[in-house]
Amino acid sequence: MQIDTISPADTARYLAFAIELADAARPLALSYFRTPLDVISKLDESPVTVADRAIEKRLRDMIEERFPTHGIHGEEMGIKPGDTFTWVLDPIDGTKSFITGFPLFGTLISLALDGKPFCGLIDVPATAERWIGSPGGTLFSGSIARSSHCGSLAEARFYTTSPDMFTGADADLFERLSRATKLRRFGGDCYIYGLIASGHCELVLETGLQPYDYMALVPVVQGAGGCMTDWDGKALSVHSGGRVLASANSKLHDEALALING
Amino acid sequence: MQIDTISPADTARYLAFAIELADAARPLALSYFRTPLDVISKLDESPVTVADRAIEKRLRDMIEERFPTHGIHGEEMGIKPGDTFTWVLDPIDGTKSFITGFPLFGTLISLALDGKPFCGLIDVPATAERWIGSPGGTLFSGSIARSSHCGSLAEARFYTTSPDMFTGADADLFERLSRATKLRRFGGDCYIYGLIASGHCELVLETGLQPYDYMALVPVVQGAGGCMTDWDGKALSVHSGGRVLASANSKLHDEALALING
Repeated sequence: MQIDTISPADTARYLAFAIELADAARPLALSYFRTPLDVISKLDESPVTVADRAIEKRLRDMIEERFPTHGIHGEEMGIKPGDTFTWVLDPIDGTKSFITGFPLFGTLISLALDGKPFCGLIDVPATAERWIGSPGGTLFSGSIARSSHCGSLAEARFYTTSPDMFTGADADLFERLSRATKLRRFGGDCYIYGLIASGHCELVLETGLQPYDYMALVPVVQGAGGCMTDWDGKALSVHSGGRVLASANSKLHDEALALING
Repeated sequence: MQIDTISPADTARYLAFAIELADAARPLALSYFRTPLDVISKLDESPVTVADRAIEKRLRDMIEERFPTHGIHGEEMGIKPGDTFTWVLDPIDGTKSFITGFPLFGTLISLALDGKPFCGLIDVPATAERWIGSPGGTLFSGSIARSSHCGSLAEARFYTTSPDMFTGADADLFERLSRATKLRRFGGDCYIYGLIASGHCELVLETGLQPYDYMALVPVVQGAGGCMTDWDGKALSVHSGGRVLASANSKLHDEALALING
């Protein structure tokens, strides 16, 4: 089965269900965010661990009830094999943001077909923002999202969550790419991929990601007109390594890939 | 005139006016946020937006009408001399956040007495959050904010806007301080000082700041129980250099100062 053989009606059905999942996750995430210190001291585990598990449990229950034959790949509770469809879940992307009261953590929900990203959703509970991407396009909080037309690295706004993810030769590469751009900024996790989809920045380079960290981001970025691949320019799947490059458009993506592999 | 001779009634009057200023600034900031803007470069090449100027103009007009004898020190339009009171303004703190659609920029409003910070306000238009600090305490969106009791650097959550502000010996110092903490995170500008006031992180070290970048933060951090000084442990004023250290409490502050100056 190919992604382009899925009917618009079926796509709409899967997107509607992804929205149901995000609607269920959001209040759970918020109930643990910025937990008062006296509550934290009574918990055996950190609030983010408790929130992570509570959300994933709820989402898995909903998926198993609605689509019992689908597979599930979650950050906390591992992989449940299924048919050609797999729901890939990251209940709280941006753990360090979550545990420091920084509001730009997200819940990531995606549907993969034979391991390839098909639909993706980034929900940002604390700001009540949501990106939903599919082959038909990307919506940001209900409006069409379009990535930027910026045509050169020299004009590109570059984000990455932290320079600390780059070591050795990767750190040199990160510096070279930084110098080729207009400005670089840190912080953001999934949020900065949403910013590419909405045309507010143009480039993200990261490494060390897991499938549940990046699978939901791919349809969001691509549906808005952007590009997202591994560092070799290959399409991302659940089997990719954790090196990802996201760009606002193909011209910029090609220029960044040439610099990375030059 | 000393800060502790200002009556509670006068303090309340100044705080109420600071809130009026922030209420006027917020819709202006939001009207320019995430809209295609020509970003104008100043001589020092830091990006500045139309929003910056529109907001500062509005705030200065309001101050000149209400307190015509007070001084004004704004990022965009410079210093207007006055009596012992000076309003220190940063219309958009976090310019790079603002121009990349990142919602954690803030408007900073403070009142200084003989150059010393007396009242301070951090408004975050995009998330509708606000910290207000004075000698009487700090409020976060209407509730009392208290900084964390975390008593050691080894347990402290450490933030700074970007590692790029630290060069040469400062970069080494930044690495040493990072290694002494539990975790370090990047991004945030004024927002991360609010996170200290609300008990969600414990330490911020920055350099290269201007008075309009830090004056409003001092009453917010101190009113919540935290400490904020220069790197030598000296009280901050409009005459300080741009090196600031903010901590959740005095024990942590002393430990950080010892490491910085050790």
